[in-house]
Amino acid sequence: MPNQPISGNDLARFSGPQTFMRLPEAETAEGLDVGFIGIPMDIGTSWRSGTRMGPKQLREQSAMIRPYNIQTGAAPFDALQCADLGDVAINTFSLSESIRIITETYTAYLKCNFIPMTLGGDHTLTLPVLRAVAEKHGPLALVHVDAHADVNDEMFGERETHGTVFRRAYEEKLITPDKVFQIGLRGTGYTADDFTEAAGWGFNQYLAPDLWHKSLTPLATDIKAKIGDQPCYITYDIDSLDPAYAPGTGTPEIGGLTTPQAMELIRGLRGLNIVGCDLVEVSPPYDTSGNTALTGANLMFEMLSILPGVPYR
Amino acid sequence: MPNQPISGNDLARFSGPQTFMRLPEAETAEGLDVGFIGIPMDIGTSWRSGTRMGPKQLREQSAMIRPYNIQTGAAPFDALQCADLGDVAINTFSLSESIRIITETYTAYLKCNFIPMTLGGDHTLTLPVLRAVAEKHGPLALVHVDAHADVNDEMFGERETHGTVFRRAYEEKLITPDKVFQIGLRGTGYTADDFTEAAGWGFNQYLAPDLWHKSLTPLATDIKAKIGDQPCYITYDIDSLDPAYAPGTGTPEIGGLTTPQAMELIRGLRGLNIVGCDLVEVSPPYDTSGNTALTGANLMFEMLSILPGVPYR
Amino acid sequence: MPNQPISGNDLARFSGPQTFMRLPEAETAEGLDVGFIGIPMDIGTSWRSGTRMGPKQLREQSAMIRPYNIQTGAAPFDALQCADLGDVAINTFSLSESIRIITETYTAYLKCNFIPMTLGGDHTLTLPVLRAVAEKHGPLALVHVDAHADVNDEMFGERETHGTVFRRAYEEKLITPDKVFQIGLRGTGYTADDFTEAAGWGFNQYLAPDLWHKSLTPLATDIKAKIGDQPCYITYDIDSLDPAYAPGTGTPEIGGLTTPQAMELIRGLRGLNIVGCDLVEVSPPYDTSGNTALTGANLMFEMLSILPGVPYR
Amino acid sequence: MPNQPISGNDLARFSGPQTFMRLPEAETAEGLDVGFIGIPMDIGTSWRSGTRMGPKQLREQSAMIRPYNIQTGAAPFDALQCADLGDVAINTFSLSESIRIITETYTAYLKCNFIPMTLGGDHTLTLPVLRAVAEKHGPLALVHVDAHADVNDEMFGERETHGTVFRRAYEEKLITPDKVFQIGLRGTGYTADDFTEAAGWGFNQYLAPDLWHKSLTPLATDIKAKIGDQPCYITYDIDSLDPAYAPGTGTPEIGGLTTPQAMELIRGLRGLNIVGCDLVEVSPPYDTSGNTALTGANLMFEMLSILPGVPYR
Amino acid sequence: MPNQPISGNDLARFSGPQTFMRLPEAETAEGLDVGFIGIPMDIGTSWRSGTRMGPKQLREQSAMIRPYNIQTGAAPFDALQCADLGDVAINTFSLSESIRIITETYTAYLKCNFIPMTLGGDHTLTLPVLRAVAEKHGPLALVHVDAHADVNDEMFGERETHGTVFRRAYEEKLITPDKVFQIGLRGTGYTADDFTEAAGWGFNQYLAPDLWHKSLTPLATDIKAKIGDQPCYITYDIDSLDPAYAPGTGTPEIGGLTTPQAMELIRGLRGLNIVGCDLVEVSPPYDTSGNTALTGANLMFEMLSILPGVPYR
Amino acid sequence: MPNQPISGNDLARFSGPQTFMRLPEAETAEGLDVGFIGIPMDIGTSWRSGTRMGPKQLREQSAMIRPYNIQTGAAPFDALQCADLGDVAINTFSLSESIRIITETYTAYLKCNFIPMTLGGDHTLTLPVLRAVAEKHGPLALVHVDAHADVNDEMFGERETHGTVFRRAYEEKLITPDKVFQIGLRGTGYTADDFTEAAGWGFNQYLAPDLWHKSLTPLATDIKAKIGDQPCYITYDIDSLDPAYAPGTGTPEIGGLTTPQAMELIRGLRGLNIVGCDLVEVSPPYDTSGNTALTGANLMFEMLSILPGVPYR
Repeated sequence: MPNQPISGNDLARFSGPQTFMRLPEAETAEGLDVGFIGIPMDIGTSWRSGTRMGPKQLREQSAMIRPYNIQTGAAPFDALQCADLGDVAINTFSLSESIRIITETYTAYLKCNFIPMTLGGDHTLTLPVLRAVAEKHGPLALVHVDAHADVNDEMFGERETHGTVFRRAYEEKLITPDKVFQIGLRGTGYTADDFTEAAGWGFNQYLAPDLWHKSLTPLATDIKAKIGDQPCYITYDIDSLDPAYAPGTGTPEIGGLTTPQAMELIRGLRGLNIVGCDLVEVSPPYDTSGNTALTGANLMFEMLSILPGVPYR
Repeated sequence: MPNQPISGNDLARFSGPQTFMRLPEAETAEGLDVGFIGIPMDIGTSWRSGTRMGPKQLREQSAMIRPYNIQTGAAPFDALQCADLGDVAINTFSLSESIRIITETYTAYLKCNFIPMTLGGDHTLTLPVLRAVAEKHGPLALVHVDAHADVNDEMFGERETHGTVFRRAYEEKLITPDKVFQIGLRGTGYTADDFTEAAGWGFNQYLAPDLWHKSLTPLATDIKAKIGDQPCYITYDIDSLDPAYAPGTGTPEIGGLTTPQAMELIRGLRGLNIVGCDLVEVSPPYDTSGNTALTGANLMFEMLSILPGVPYR
Repeated sequence: MPNQPISGNDLARFSGPQTFMRLPEAETAEGLDVGFIGIPMDIGTSWRSGTRMGPKQLREQSAMIRPYNIQTGAAPFDALQCADLGDVAINTFSLSESIRIITETYTAYLKCNFIPMTLGGDHTLTLPVLRAVAEKHGPLALVHVDAHADVNDEMFGERETHGTVFRRAYEEKLITPDKVFQIGLRGTGYTADDFTEAAGWGFNQYLAPDLWHKSLTPLATDIKAKIGDQPCYITYDIDSLDPAYAPGTGTPEIGGLTTPQAMELIRGLRGLNIVGCDLVEVSPPYDTSGNTALTGANLMFEMLSILPGVPYR
Repeated sequence: MPNQPISGNDLARFSGPQTFMRLPEAETAEGLDVGFIGIPMDIGTSWRSGTRMGPKQLREQSAMIRPYNIQTGAAPFDALQCADLGDVAINTFSLSESIRIITETYTAYLKCNFIPMTLGGDHTLTLPVLRAVAEKHGPLALVHVDAHADVNDEMFGERETHGTVFRRAYEEKLITPDKVFQIGLRGTGYTADDFTEAAGWGFNQYLAPDLWHKSLTPLATDIKAKIGDQPCYITYDIDSLDPAYAPGTGTPEIGGLTTPQAMELIRGLRGLNIVGCDLVEVSPPYDTSGNTALTGANLMFEMLSILPGVPYR
Repeated sequence: MPNQPISGNDLARFSGPQTFMRLPEAETAEGLDVGFIGIPMDIGTSWRSGTRMGPKQLREQSAMIRPYNIQTGAAPFDALQCADLGDVAINTFSLSESIRIITETYTAYLKCNFIPMTLGGDHTLTLPVLRAVAEKHGPLALVHVDAHADVNDEMFGERETHGTVFRRAYEEKLITPDKVFQIGLRGTGYTADDFTEAAGWGFNQYLAPDLWHKSLTPLATDIKAKIGDQPCYITYDIDSLDPAYAPGTGTPEIGGLTTPQAMELIRGLRGLNIVGCDLVEVSPPYDTSGNTALTGANLMFEMLSILPGVPYR
Repeated sequence: MPNQPISGNDLARFSGPQTFMRLPEAETAEGLDVGFIGIPMDIGTSWRSGTRMGPKQLREQSAMIRPYNIQTGAAPFDALQCADLGDVAINTFSLSESIRIITETYTAYLKCNFIPMTLGGDHTLTLPVLRAVAEKHGPLALVHVDAHADVNDEMFGERETHGTVFRRAYEEKLITPDKVFQIGLRGTGYTADDFTEAAGWGFNQYLAPDLWHKSLTPLATDIKAKIGDQPCYITYDIDSLDPAYAPGTGTPEIGGLTTPQAMELIRGLRGLNIVGCDLVEVSPPYDTSGNTALTGANLMFEMLSILPGVPYR
């Protein structure tokens, strides 16, 4: 039987190892189907910091998740071998150096065939992860759930920050533009072109106001059809959610998604050929209850539940 | 005229006795139609504690509620004699002993004909309360609003905890299985049977995803029809609400009900033969604003507003 | 070119002057189209205080707003000359004296033709502001978004508090009764007449339960039609929002509006002849994340975006 | 036997009535030796508000105090009849009106011979209390522990605020100037005369830097000798303590007293003819742990322990 | 070379395993000199709960401690083999059952010769730990640093709670009465006998007021001389510290020790034949900054630094 | 008359511009004696981040400081022309680039003869500031108050971080080694050499345990004598204070200085030829009360009070 999370009936939930879902740790990805990897960084953020504490709190809150997805029937631990690979040893004083280390670390891990599920950390990390993942799988379809399009050209003269990720990924051909789906965009911008340029590249953009009051199940169905069986990466920025649902983040924007919408969206993507996922921008110092990390950990579990090979009961 | 809450025009709301809605205290239930009773316990919880402070904060936040339900027309204090009966003197070091004390206390109170409205406290308390209430009224219809079905057989070998209440109530025939309505269930579980066994007993279960984006008024109408005039108990676990609405609770689960849904549900149950209510699992240490208790106090007032005999203006 | 907010690309968002949206300060309203004015008071509140810190935190959180409204196309700073006029020098020990000072200050400012946008502060401030604005423009249409009707006759014998504003405004003929729209009313009251008397004057009241689960765009369209081109004032009490969206306020009421609804409402009012706006009742001590002020600042920006003369791209 | 606090062995400390030390309530001072009275106000504050919540939290935290002062041997409840008289029904919208109400209320209470112990509330309240107490007992000796001398002439043109109390008391001859002892003064001021004028009236001033690193027992002995048997009032502003010990207050000043010093000072005053005490300026919204109120409640108990007639075991 | 904590230069401090000081985990005590063991419980508390989260937060905050005690020269990891043994699998619903499990677990561990250092959890845990330790080493000398003597006979009829530990230990002869040193006692009590009875058994009691303003080095020297080479256990209750230094605890008492005093005391005990230590009563929900756990983790490190065999550089 | 802070009697303290002490802003240092400059950065921190919000909160809390230092008689604004120069426009994504910008900015400012008083920001900033100041004034005497010596050679391979500042300053001869005074050192380290190497360069080190329970006035006198009239820079790291006094910082260490000691130290340095000061490492997200920033702002005022040319009344 594959690795199992420690049961809350064997050891009290507020106890035990602080790995994701209290799974065993692993040193390498060998033999794994899924590996959880933390990237504790916040030096790529432009407003509030604190996401360096994100992976730790995501793991802590994940202790409450049980192994069976009672709402959908997914039983990921019945089939997939999962473990926590710990944190990437980033250089907390240098963003550029950390970006280099992340790609290097993921490239090494990806010599094994497994799906990396990353616990952020600020959104900058998605760029070096995509570099490693696309090197293995070729250009990727991308489901990008976020309040922000993150397609700036530069910020303070820097080309690699949490606001420039998807322009770089586009330029470097890590992603297939017309198979990029940006969902939940909103907030304010500098010009009318802020989003439209990326639309011109082929990016499919779904602004939050067009999603208010609606189930996202139809949207998920539509996206799934368009992506087909191309290798797909899901990057989930917790600030796609409304601040009511996820206060602990660095650049919150009002009028966002609800957690029901987030779950509908992820559940509706079941069947995609997912090769990697991340959950980013949880900033614990701005969330006194820990519920933002709880939400992030649950969304991570929802993404786990739709990976290829997960049985449904 | 029956007891009235102290008016905010007579004494500033941040002032005065810390009884529920600043009602008079009472030593016995004699002469009362409704008695508010606190059960300050948290030793039956499995994740975060803190609900021992719940009754105190529910009373504190209830100071903002005025006597007339402006949205529905209910004027409970025009007809019902209400008072605060204080707290049950539980034994904070022994869960089993506390359970015994609660039943004993309620049984004594229920020699009078009144409706106990309980301020929790962790959900374990509902079991000993049901024992006393069912002894008086016979098997009860049950409206159970909660993220969790609370039908475990045991936890750490214990048969009476906040996660086993409704299996025990079923076994002890305190409730009529096909008149049990569990609303808002979600979260994760251990096996596919977690909920289905209880469904097999006859429990009616409404998972949260089936309720998203909807008014709960039709559901309430349906439940009311099915229950008819059987004596009915309402147990309201604050974690049925989404953590955005009720962060201060011990085992929050994302994707829950909204407060409009909670109010629709309760308002739609008007006409039932309600013989008792509780509001449980408010954990003040996890809510820095006090708004979870504010929500709980308001839902308590909504339940008060649908009790038999309440006039509507 | 008119004044521009400092760009987040020129100076980090957590830096720079703490004016609204980091706009230039101005000593007088001369030459302005729009002036942001703080009124830091809380001595008119009846439950929790703290709104005296509101203007400061609204300005702080506004630093994250960029100049272009990407969701609607509004580009207010392309055409309107905006500045921050600082705070009114109220007397923090005397409510009546502060009320006098506010009217005096606004009357002086309004010798210039500009639109005052006020950052509160408790809702009492709207009365003296309306006195000054109505003196200039005549009786006003009023869009009043709030959990409370604020039409008490007196509170503790006082006739001018945060709960009596719109009765006074009605009595003083500052507003045109049948062009008053109160949206989001809920909570509890003292008698069945609490709201109905104002309805009798002609006030149009929209209770929250009638708005749940709905887009407010149709309502906005309807209001706009009814108001026509009469000079209109918008007063936005942050407690109109559900406490999940705006925990940091003095008298929260559950079952309120969502931020999508708030934005739909404001955006739908584009075209009105708006002559003043305020955003009141943000109480920072009750909001540990700052997100209530963030919400307030964004709603202020949405109101700015629909002022007469704003171009859309 | 006189009234006793509810024992923590009879009813869990987090339970029971929210009176001071869970003593019985009383409607009048008749038959009492000591009455605890709350004055929940903050409209006399000049920086942070929130003290309106002070009496409530002082009572809540007092639940942890047991009846016997184990460090000194004082057993106040063996001899003194104590009760909680509830809150003064102030007018929260008018400082001047509240001041009038307080004097009126205390004058009525003081027809009985008892010692009022006041739970504040902002320091403004001490002026109207002194008016009532001095009317009964004549000019008073005063022990005033505070970071601020509170001897401004006016603030924003107002003569009765939390910063002008002791100038007014001096002018009105409520206190005997050379029997006034101001302890813990510090902070910053407007001119060199801020304190020295009061020194000229005869006030004895002890600046905090002269007290650092020292026991305050000798100072207490000295003060006691100077006051002799003149009726004496103690006013204890929680901001006399360093913010490390009492963060939850409106105008904190660094470099203050420690709680050991506060207890030494109060204990050393045993033997004085104390006719009234207050504990003011606890502001709960600025103290997330509740420890400032805990400290205030304990200092209240220390003052109770030195009242005339308290037996020592 | 023995196990070393992960260096902050190899892996960022906010990263890596959440073991004590990021040491390796161990399954058994075999080969260890020192084992860190968590006991995550709070069901033995009488006022605020939350200590079930203590071990987790102590480990989290310990990540900032480096291996060398720069102030004293102690280099514990140069000689002692240390590891984290994880948490005891207590039964969170039954205090009596948890007590039994703890003794059983420690008895099993103590078949190896190592020093258990326990991370609490509420103070109840010290009783079952002492049972196991005394079984191995015989009656123990005890250094007990605490605000409370914890010598009640029973609480709510229960004989084993966080307030009865040392009476039970005395009765069961787990400790040598005249080699018991209780340091920091204060707070309030029920009668004059609360402490004196234990003094009669031979306990040496040091009340906090006798320690104010003083170095505790002389006291430590004195205690060390009196204990001699008898096997000694140190139980450190974080509430011995003043709430200014340790706000996050369940039963705070003002006027306590400072952290310099705590460190002087522990450092002064170097040379004792220490056979076990614990650090109890850290309650994270009551400490928003995490500094109480930081303090607890550092005191744990100070105790580690004085264990037999630690070299000094 | 020089610039004056806005008086709290003219404009309520919770109002007005968010400059340091509500002084006027200035664009250049021309004509100034003292300029307050913010450096909002945290990307040089190794544990908790958040100091990027420090300058903003220091300014906010400084609103409570009045112009006259009542404890010492200092009246800085009677003689010195002071203004707030705003923030340095750092590059929040690049530590090395920010370091370059800081030196460049200070070098430009220092073409004028004025004293820069810097509001941090993490301690890394002191290095580039020293480069600019030493270029103007030559090698500097240094008073460095801190828990940490900050003399690492590198961290994660980086040579310029918040932990390497004073080794770099030493190597670059920005400071005169035997006129460097490091006060308050404590915490833990990696080897016995952590501090001693710097002692070998001539640095004078005062460990916290040697300062416990003592006035620091004699130490200040001694330092002043040793420095003589050499140009001197004071760098004050808020973590020199005990976490009880300054919880809101990134790398807190227990057993630190008290605020009385901090004030004694600074006041005792009056007479030095001070050419620059900074106050660093205030991290607002870790301080819910704002008192750490309040403390920092007051220490800034104490340093201002001892600058050359300040008159004493």
